[in-house]
Amino acid sequence: MLEAKKHQYSRQLNLEAVNIQDRYWSSYVDLIRNTVIPYQWEAINDRIPDAEPSHAIRNFRIAAGLEEGEFAGFVFQDTDLYKWLEAVGYSLAVKPDADLEKIADEAIRLIASAQQDDGYLNTYFAVAKPGKRWTNLTDCHEMYTAGHLIEAAVAYYQGTGKSELLDVATRFADHIDDKFGPEPGKMRGYDGHQELELALVKLYEATGNSRYLNLAGYLIDERGSEPNFLRAEWEERGRISHWAPGVVQQTPGLEYLQAHQPVREQTTAIGHAVRAVYMYTAMADLALHRGDASLLAACERLWNNLVHRQMYVTGSIGSTHHGEAFTFDYDLPNDTNYSETCASIGLIFFAHRMLQLKAKGEYGDVMERALYNTVTAGIAGDGKHYFYVNPMEVWPEASERNPGKHHVKAVRQKWYGCACCPPNVARILSSLAYYIFTSDENTLYTHLYIANETELELSGRKVRLRLDSGLPWKGEAKLTVAEAAGEGAFTLAMRVPGWSKTSAFSINGEKITPDIVDGYAYVSRDWRAGDVLAIELDMEPQRIYAHPHLRANAGRVALQRGPLVYCFEETDNGAPLASLTLPATSSIRPVHAEWRDGVVFLEMEGYRTEETELQESKLYRTDPYKRETRRLLAVPYTLWGNRNPGEMLVWIRESE
Amino acid sequence: MLEAKKHQYSRQLNLEAVNIQDRYWSSYVDLIRNTVIPYQWEAINDRIPDAEPSHAIRNFRIAAGLEEGEFAGFVFQDTDLYKWLEAVGYSLAVKPDADLEKIADEAIRLIASAQQDDGYLNTYFAVAKPGKRWTNLTDCHEMYTAGHLIEAAVAYYQGTGKSELLDVATRFADHIDDKFGPEPGKMRGYDGHQELELALVKLYEATGNSRYLNLAGYLIDERGSEPNFLRAEWEERGRISHWAPGVVQQTPGLEYLQAHQPVREQTTAIGHAVRAVYMYTAMADLALHRGDASLLAACERLWNNLVHRQMYVTGSIGSTHHGEAFTFDYDLPNDTNYSETCASIGLIFFAHRMLQLKAKGEYGDVMERALYNTVTAGIAGDGKHYFYVNPMEVWPEASERNPGKHHVKAVRQKWYGCACCPPNVARILSSLAYYIFTSDENTLYTHLYIANETELELSGRKVRLRLDSGLPWKGEAKLTVAEAAGEGAFTLAMRVPGWSKTSAFSINGEKITPDIVDGYAYVSRDWRAGDVLAIELDMEPQRIYAHPHLRANAGRVALQRGPLVYCFEETDNGAPLASLTLPATSSIRPVHAEWRDGVVFLEMEGYRTEETELQESKLYRTDPYKRETRRLLAVPYTLWGNRNPGEMLVWIRESE
Repeated sequence: MLEAKKHQYSRQLNLEAVNIQDRYWSSYVDLIRNTVIPYQWEAINDRIPDAEPSHAIRNFRIAAGLEEGEFAGFVFQDTDLYKWLEAVGYSLAVKPDADLEKIADEAIRLIASAQQDDGYLNTYFAVAKPGKRWTNLTDCHEMYTAGHLIEAAVAYYQGTGKSELLDVATRFADHIDDKFGPEPGKMRGYDGHQELELALVKLYEATGNSRYLNLAGYLIDERGSEPNFLRAEWEERGRISHWAPGVVQQTPGLEYLQAHQPVREQTTAIGHAVRAVYMYTAMADLALHRGDASLLAACERLWNNLVHRQMYVTGSIGSTHHGEAFTFDYDLPNDTNYSETCASIGLIFFAHRMLQLKAKGEYGDVMERALYNTVTAGIAGDGKHYFYVNPMEVWPEASERNPGKHHVKAVRQKWYGCACCPPNVARILSSLAYYIFTSDENTLYTHLYIANETELELSGRKVRLRLDSGLPWKGEAKLTVAEAAGEGAFTLAMRVPGWSKTSAFSINGEKITPDIVDGYAYVSRDWRAGDVLAIELDMEPQRIYAHPHLRANAGRVALQRGPLVYCFEETDNGAPLASLTLPATSSIRPVHAEWRDGVVFLEMEGYRTEETELQESKLYRTDPYKRETRRLLAVPYTLWGNRNPGEMLVWIRESE
Repeated sequence: MLEAKKHQYSRQLNLEAVNIQDRYWSSYVDLIRNTVIPYQWEAINDRIPDAEPSHAIRNFRIAAGLEEGEFAGFVFQDTDLYKWLEAVGYSLAVKPDADLEKIADEAIRLIASAQQDDGYLNTYFAVAKPGKRWTNLTDCHEMYTAGHLIEAAVAYYQGTGKSELLDVATRFADHIDDKFGPEPGKMRGYDGHQELELALVKLYEATGNSRYLNLAGYLIDERGSEPNFLRAEWEERGRISHWAPGVVQQTPGLEYLQAHQPVREQTTAIGHAVRAVYMYTAMADLALHRGDASLLAACERLWNNLVHRQMYVTGSIGSTHHGEAFTFDYDLPNDTNYSETCASIGLIFFAHRMLQLKAKGEYGDVMERALYNTVTAGIAGDGKHYFYVNPMEVWPEASERNPGKHHVKAVRQKWYGCACCPPNVARILSSLAYYIFTSDENTLYTHLYIANETELELSGRKVRLRLDSGLPWKGEAKLTVAEAAGEGAFTLAMRVPGWSKTSAFSINGEKITPDIVDGYAYVSRDWRAGDVLAIELDMEPQRIYAHPHLRANAGRVALQRGPLVYCFEETDNGAPLASLTLPATSSIRPVHAEWRDGVVFLEMEGYRTEETELQESKLYRTDPYKRETRRLLAVPYTLWGNRNPGEMLVWIRESE
């Protein structure tokens, strides 16, 4: 069954097969390689002054018996190191670096020396809770942590060919597989925080050992079924959470963990956002590898709810900081949202898997939206400051002085005690090449217009291609066939972004009208070296309106140009930004920013409350406030907060 | 010094001297007397099915040795009973009721039997924490609870002439005075929750014993001075709060308790809103009784910050539910505000004291705004359901499913575990007569246009007056001199509400143009029986605009007619209310509601997003949504939630 279905799907290319050379994205890739990976190594070694300590390396040293001390940090603190190693693995796949590899190898030896004889590996339980393994799957992230170990191991193995970490990971995976499953004598458990599932699929793909795919399948199938394992475990613990010792809980909070019903019956994105999208990713993985139609149908239902009811315009998800969670349909407040960077990364994972199941423009659109807007917003231009929360509007004084907005940071932070986001950004940007293309036997799908050179086999022909792209600033992109051995037709499929209202295509300069199916333009021919397939996208700035049920955006408009959503910053427009309006008739002009290379700002005529009116001391009055015209400037959301700190606003009021 | 200053000020009249007979307010007064007081007696006896229990009476029975059991409820649970008794005292002052008085007398005997030999009285410490008295003034509300005992005792004494509860209260006050003060050997402490201060002033006024005024003065003077008592106490407790056992706190949170600096140096309303306004009330009381100019100046500064920077248009305060507190200037979100009913009651206390210090229209305006809008919103038409939180807008599904809005109830509740608000509403509405007038030797000030008959002495003449009023529905009010013994001039001063843009005055039907000073119209003459002083107020519906710094209301407008702020309800206008706009040019027409007697709704032409547009499933799109004209209906905010549950909105978007 596994092999039978595989050919229907397109798969990602190997990292080393795609060499990114992009005016916009190379700077991010370089930033990760040259700055972020070294910086995060310092961070997980607790060597960043004035930043919250990670404790990650120290915990491993204690667990390995190399140092005396107590475990510190969260139960999932090991993942700081694992995610860093995963990013290193991706980076080394693309560009070898002997010094970095040496550091990483030492870290891997440290991890190996902390592994217990039976394969178990978790510094929190080893150091702080010996004998308490697997007693609180709901809260304590043991499988989650194992998942990140596996992802790191696969990435490092694929990036370097070295298998030491992969051996560690498979031993732990085997240990888990021995312990958990539907078979008599095993625990019928699964983790409170999904992550192991998608990691096991990667391990299966890397090793070919179906044991791991089956374990992933078990974890997904078992989740939320009755009798409910997590509810029973909670009862056994005396209804106490690890996170609130001494407090008897009213409910086990199964919705929060997406364990309230079997995954195939779930229709609404609910609970902790990162857990949700990591689970959906694994569901899509399993749908692909097992040709599981019911799982695919569940993925499609959940996708629709998530994307058409609960996603911010920047491709971020999770509208409340209470539990970093979804709330409900159309509840997308702008000033108290959570929109965790990690959740958008998980959304990209999910979209990427759905694309492999089916080339559908909407999957590519959402992947692009989350990547170009939220994920890169998560990291500062210097590579050393990060957002965990990505608000739609910020009033810095409220972030400081209104406790309901403390989670909304007006300035990127150096590090976080719960540092899931910074290394997550590093691992996705260092594996960016995975998200550009997928291919099946005969077709190369271009999902993201990120310039690169790639080699692959299509219809049995060895093909070398160059993708050029002006995005996100210019709408031209082209695929040039640099080499194509032999002959015979193959297909180049290009995503036609949902934001491009009129797209033009040409081959070698001659206009064509390709078939466009589900948001992808398909061009099949006997491609020859020198052939150029070009697409020209509509880069007119657009106004975005939200569904009327999304109450927070009533009367407001957001601006988008190409893949980028824009925002208004105080430094360009003055405060309060709430005083600005954008007339419905104003034309919106792209202008070159006198700032970073190539950056396009948007300029337009608008109104603001007259300056003199701000002096008035009365809180309420019966005379309307007078307004004056002024030039407004909008900047790409993803770059906000890189100049002077101040207010920020995505959804501006539209006036007539 | 005390007596020297007194004559400058006007004082409230005795309750029994003012007989309210008002078409609008009598129904509230009757509701309190006939329904609320009996209902709340059932509540504090835990006899309301499906409501959260009070435990109040039971705690007293346990403390008195009449019942076995454990203390239950909050540390300040005794105040449920005290506030009820205070309301009973006021009610009996106006209308004797032998059955009610018998029940109250029994309750008072219960209280007396729970008092300890040395005068101390608090069932929490007596039952749950013997030997721990006065060890945690920050958190445990001992003086706060004593304050409510004293207020109840004074009210019951004045209402019935019976002194048993007053004796209990004075014994406890004496005990506190023996224990606390600046003298050597006494504790230099004060309570975390202000309330005793204003109660002691009442006790001084009732008994003439300056010991209580001095103790109140000490508590106010000592608060926030260095060395800081509450910080030292917190250090001594190991930096642990009663409310979070086992959690070491970062700071003692002195701002929250208004104890971060001496009260005379405070300029900004900060911290827990009810504590703040109770403190400001006592400060104004002391400024009056002691002619203390520096305390008066502090009151004026705090008033200005509170009213011109931090007050909702409905006269509610406290913009965050985190600590039921103020946040900072202009931070008045509409959908997550707290706006506790009790805080508006405290604001009325403060305004009422400021009015006695100086007849200034703004004090009366704020008192009226809080009373007519928020306080009465706190109680349902049936007298048995209450709001603790008074939001500016409600989306019921968000209240259920967004944890950041759980405090915003879309429907009034039967009772609350922390039941400060319901009995607070009862005590203020049963003492409403206090807030209508104040007088000095020669002048009667009319602050609120609530119809009544009153008797008093002015310029040595015995005068009987009738106040007629059409408010809040009609703008005519008149003072008729029913009797006036002797002769000689006295002054009738009538508040000219800030909301009335053009007010007309007449005597016996002839137009006059009185001197208007600080929002009061003064008419002095040798008034004779039969003379009528009439005022006609402007009842044109008005649009209210918020200061541009109040970001949440940018582009929005609120409606007010007379003293009443209006709101839109789903039942009249459909959902989502966010889809509505009110054109700047629409005329707003008062219409008689087919509902309760006299109620005026407002009707206007507006727009809403076309019904068909609500079907569209996309979350974002580039085409603007079409709108259609429709009739909008606004209802008095104070009556919202008395028909079908649904959305509610005060600040509607204004379109061009």
